[in-house]
Amino acid sequence: MAVPPSTYPHRLLPLFLGLFQAALLLFFALFITYDEPSAQEDDTSLVANQVYSTFPFFQDIQVMLVVGLGLLLTFLPRYGFSSLTHNFLLLNFSMQWALVLQGLLHHFHHGQIHLDLHKLLVSEFAAVTVLISVGAILGRASPCQLLVMATCEIPIYLATEWVIVTCLGVLDVGGTITIHLFSCYFGLGVSKALFRATQQPLHPKETPTPSSDLVSLVGTLILWVFWPSFVAVLCQPGDAQHRAILNTLLAMSAGAITTVVASSLLERDGKLSPGHLQNGSLAGGVAIGVVADMAVPPVAALALGSLSAVVCVLGFGFLTPLLRRKLALHDQCGIHNLHGLPGILGSAASVVAVLVASKDTS
Amino acid sequence: MAVPPSTYPHRLLPLFLGLFQAALLLFFALFITYDEPSAQEDDTSLVANQVYSTFPFFQDIQVMLVVGLGLLLTFLPRYGFSSLTHNFLLLNFSMQWALVLQGLLHHFHHGQIHLDLHKLLVSEFAAVTVLISVGAILGRASPCQLLVMATCEIPIYLATEWVIVTCLGVLDVGGTITIHLFSCYFGLGVSKALFRATQQPLHPKETPTPSSDLVSLVGTLILWVFWPSFVAVLCQPGDAQHRAILNTLLAMSAGAITTVVASSLLERDGKLSPGHLQNGSLAGGVAIGVVADMAVPPVAALALGSLSAVVCVLGFGFLTPLLRRKLALHDQCGIHNLHGLPGILGSAASVVAVLVASKDTS
Amino acid sequence: MAVPPSTYPHRLLPLFLGLFQAALLLFFALFITYDEPSAQEDDTSLVANQVYSTFPFFQDIQVMLVVGLGLLLTFLPRYGFSSLTHNFLLLNFSMQWALVLQGLLHHFHHGQIHLDLHKLLVSEFAAVTVLISVGAILGRASPCQLLVMATCEIPIYLATEWVIVTCLGVLDVGGTITIHLFSCYFGLGVSKALFRATQQPLHPKETPTPSSDLVSLVGTLILWVFWPSFVAVLCQPGDAQHRAILNTLLAMSAGAITTVVASSLLERDGKLSPGHLQNGSLAGGVAIGVVADMAVPPVAALALGSLSAVVCVLGFGFLTPLLRRKLALHDQCGIHNLHGLPGILGSAASVVAVLVASKDTS
Repeated sequence: MAVPPSTYPHRLLPLFLGLFQAALLLFFALFITYDEPSAQEDDTSLVANQVYSTFPFFQDIQVMLVVGLGLLLTFLPRYGFSSLTHNFLLLNFSMQWALVLQGLLHHFHHGQIHLDLHKLLVSEFAAVTVLISVGAILGRASPCQLLVMATCEIPIYLATEWVIVTCLGVLDVGGTITIHLFSCYFGLGVSKALFRATQQPLHPKETPTPSSDLVSLVGTLILWVFWPSFVAVLCQPGDAQHRAILNTLLAMSAGAITTVVASSLLERDGKLSPGHLQNGSLAGGVAIGVVADMAVPPVAALALGSLSAVVCVLGFGFLTPLLRRKLALHDQCGIHNLHGLPGILGSAASVVAVLVASKDTS
Repeated sequence: MAVPPSTYPHRLLPLFLGLFQAALLLFFALFITYDEPSAQEDDTSLVANQVYSTFPFFQDIQVMLVVGLGLLLTFLPRYGFSSLTHNFLLLNFSMQWALVLQGLLHHFHHGQIHLDLHKLLVSEFAAVTVLISVGAILGRASPCQLLVMATCEIPIYLATEWVIVTCLGVLDVGGTITIHLFSCYFGLGVSKALFRATQQPLHPKETPTPSSDLVSLVGTLILWVFWPSFVAVLCQPGDAQHRAILNTLLAMSAGAITTVVASSLLERDGKLSPGHLQNGSLAGGVAIGVVADMAVPPVAALALGSLSAVVCVLGFGFLTPLLRRKLALHDQCGIHNLHGLPGILGSAASVVAVLVASKDTS
Repeated sequence: MAVPPSTYPHRLLPLFLGLFQAALLLFFALFITYDEPSAQEDDTSLVANQVYSTFPFFQDIQVMLVVGLGLLLTFLPRYGFSSLTHNFLLLNFSMQWALVLQGLLHHFHHGQIHLDLHKLLVSEFAAVTVLISVGAILGRASPCQLLVMATCEIPIYLATEWVIVTCLGVLDVGGTITIHLFSCYFGLGVSKALFRATQQPLHPKETPTPSSDLVSLVGTLILWVFWPSFVAVLCQPGDAQHRAILNTLLAMSAGAITTVVASSLLERDGKLSPGHLQNGSLAGGVAIGVVADMAVPPVAALALGSLSAVVCVLGFGFLTPLLRRKLALHDQCGIHNLHGLPGILGSAASVVAVLVASKDTS
């Protein structure tokens, strides 16, 4: 949609998507089924409990990804509608593609895959990686390029996640490493590969207006509110989940205030930068994911949230211009500041947390 | 608000609504009460469970109707505020009116009606019919005309629903037939009756702008996210509800992708039409309602979602212009494409599902 | 942000907030901890139940405060972004500040404060008072002035709440008296103190546009939808909570319709005033808070909702201009009409409810 129609191979997109949907239908017809209806009453109440405990979290996450993230990406005024649409399309495409791949890899028993809400949720998590990576090339890639990127990214994510979580045994309940760090560097790589030589100046269409900044900030606030659901949904119910919710709330809250501090110190006239607010407020949530359900004290969550916000704002102020100048690396939404740097911070924090915990018990 | 003040009988609206509220107060004073406080502890936990299992769904549906549907209707830029307001007003009016009528018809025991959350929910479902029908005459009817329409539609809906569900024994958990199909043809009838002869050209105020299309799409996305709650809220807890949620999620997801395919094939330059996206993405949810909790395989939900989206987009491309030309039938929001055609498709699918099921068991 | 940069002491804000965050970190490091992991399986399911019963309400309230209230305050077009940002900043600041003070006052045992979701929720309620009071001086105070106001208001609120609830034994589950009435008169006092002599004319920046009115109304609708969660979250689970939800739903619904009646009677040409709709629709929720979980008949909730809306609209029509003329009292958002008058009405209703109940039982 961003590319003029004359040069745009405008039958490629429907062809690609249409074939994908047809293949998906075939795959579902052959392999996918639901669980048998539970025979006993006990099982029924078990399923019911599962629905009531997982479904509200699942809906919160859907709101985050479809509405929150979609709105956050509308800060480029002319690409607003396209950003929202591409985000929505990529979420659905990646989720279905991840469902197929995960079914084949993990859940293939006796020629059948039993679908449930938990499997949909895990596929949704895989789709998040694509939505984050898109941020690096927002408004500069055609829908087809985005779909090709999604097609490649999902299997690579699944492999990476398998290595990190299953082989290496890393605990990462909120996806700090497997989702945020991975997708950040994947997206930056794609940006570099697609726009290697072009050190293009900022397009006038790419300047946010007050109105587009307002809508984008609403997206941030929706993400901010529901972030605890994203981090806590896969935790063990009970204490661990309760702790994950509290830790995330504390980190988000500290991150919000520290963003204001860092941004108004960094900007020459003390005004707040909309871009800092839109991203810095969320940095705490990225970093806390990997330690959220560990037995860390509340002060650690606060400190991690504050530190992430500082790092994110500093990244916008210094690192992004530097990367663009030195490496000709264009990072449209600043995903390196929101997902990369806080992700590294969170990973370091988790190492410290594990070391402290093992010292305590030894 | 749409009609110039000089010609507008501007005391009629408050008079009508004021009398309605006064009558409602009288009716509530005479007949409506709450359940007695539960005497036993077991009952208390029963009520508590009911609150926790129904209330989140209820809130999701409120968000859909008040915010999601309201925003979807703001695509006519000059009528944006009026659309949102009228939708809100009609929801409240119709819900209260349905509460009275349903109380009189179904729940009148010993001169009293016991109010609970479930009865409010059922009244809300009745109000949905009015909100859908309004789409046919959006921006062309005065608030008073809309209220008169609501006053007539609610009792006709209750009668129709009683015939279909109670007399004919049709299973329609997501309201595909009783809500979507009914309200679509009711709305088209009202449009024909109100604007019979006038084959008026498109008013310049009625052309969406990029900004109004963006806001309207946000409404669609909110509806899209919470649609599973709408379909599943009245299901049997446990397996049936779990299956209804999964089927709806699959149908919505397939519908979203197929809409993009169909729209970019239909539009000459391969661009996506905002109107197609705003409606086609939801068509799957309309069609799946009637079979959502049946034991259909996952592939059926996918196929139904895809097919509905195709039918909806084709409807916008060919049927709506045809109806306007041949029958002078004006359908402002295209409710025939979003609620009519997918509703027919879903009904046909439910017949097939029941036939297959009865063959399996025989 | 509202004040020109040249006159703005733009290092004060980050200094103040930075010191606050540092002090908070120290306080958390010394005194705040989580509960010990539950040893027994029964406890685990207890914690899990607590998470599942409180957390959805908590998220609803977060959406109300961060997104709903934030958007409601954007009706001044040039201050839109600032309003949203200040609201977000003040919520986080006040919540953390209330957490510290409440921890010191109520939960200090053996030198430690055990943090849980319920304590965060209670702090959030305290923060609401600040967000309401801000409405009186919106767009006319610098961020630093707002923070100073928050710093003073939270301890005064905690003292007032302690006197009203603990000493006087007033039942006020929805915070009608302790939150709405208190913060309204606190905010008006601040407005009077800050802008004592200046009877300034309306600034052209302070005139809402159709677009800003639309966004603001979306904020109202989000608040309207989730208001029952705000009122019911602290109720006894079971009957009382169920009744609080129903009463609030009825009051909100009646208030919405009555607002339309009152506004179109009051306006000369029968048009609806956006300001009336944005506020009147919520007045019922303010008034019902104090009686929501009492054994009042449904008709009382309806009547209270209607009456509050009438009082709120009349307040906008007559009282606000009067206060501005006679007392030079500037109330930017009309918080006296939305929180003051309905709060008084609700308090009076609670007195009647208690008197009737005591007569019944004697």
